[in-house]
Amino acid sequence: MPGIDELETLSRANLGFYEAFQTLDPEKMDAVWAETEDVTAVHPGWALIKGRSAVMESWRRIFENPSMMQFAVTGVELRVEGNVGWVTCTENITSLVDGQVGESRVQGTNVYVRRGTEWRMVHHHGSPVMRR
Amino acid sequence: MPGIDELETLSRANLGFYEAFQTLDPEKMDAVWAETEDVTAVHPGWALIKGRSAVMESWRRIFENPSMMQFAVTGVELRVEGNVGWVTCTENITSLVDGQVGESRVQGTNVYVRRGTEWRMVHHHGSPVMRR
Repeated sequence: MPGIDELETLSRANLGFYEAFQTLDPEKMDAVWAETEDVTAVHPGWALIKGRSAVMESWRRIFENPSMMQFAVTGVELRVEGNVGWVTCTENITSLVDGQVGESRVQGTNVYVRRGTEWRMVHHHGSPVMRR
Repeated sequence: MPGIDELETLSRANLGFYEAFQTLDPEKMDAVWAETEDVTAVHPGWALIKGRSAVMESWRRIFENPSMMQFAVTGVELRVEGNVGWVTCTENITSLVDGQVGESRVQGTNVYVRRGTEWRMVHHHGSPVMRR
């Protein structure tokens, strides 16, 4: 059974990911991710992106359009096994693109690996929620 | 670095998941999953399903409609850290529903936990691929 401490640090790392996302700042997002080359991401409707530089390029593209993004993250489920933590949560997103406010709901799976005391993201999978 | 053996057993477990999927047999799918209550799944366009019985019920619903499903699984990426393995792959699906052949492409993230020599699924996330 994972301890309370490790669930708490994982939860904080996951909040950190969405905080970085909200800043729309590629450097802040970069700091969330593991330094290894084998990181991967799936954005809503996209195919897999693999490799650190390709994943970071995908964030830069995503951050280009909205002038604001706010996340209300709900239904967070945290699991830890050894040095791997995986989190599922629903991203309730309000965004401002070309002066238009949009709302969307994305189901997220986030995988983190712990090195020392720090959880770093190794995989992110976001998918559109189209039914309840 | 994970050894060749554990990547091979993880790869075989992931193939086993898609073989079970193709049989459209809930019992075969049940055997793929960990026996723990905290398993989760996201099917394309769905919100998160949590808990073993709810996840298994979702497979029964998915298996009700098609009379045939075939998977060509491509772009498999395998990673192991301790007793956790996570796999990303593209599911190229041909299905037969009400006498109509359909084709679709789903991006999958599959998380497995190893107990002894056996990898069991603890989380599955499938999402529609709508752009390249």
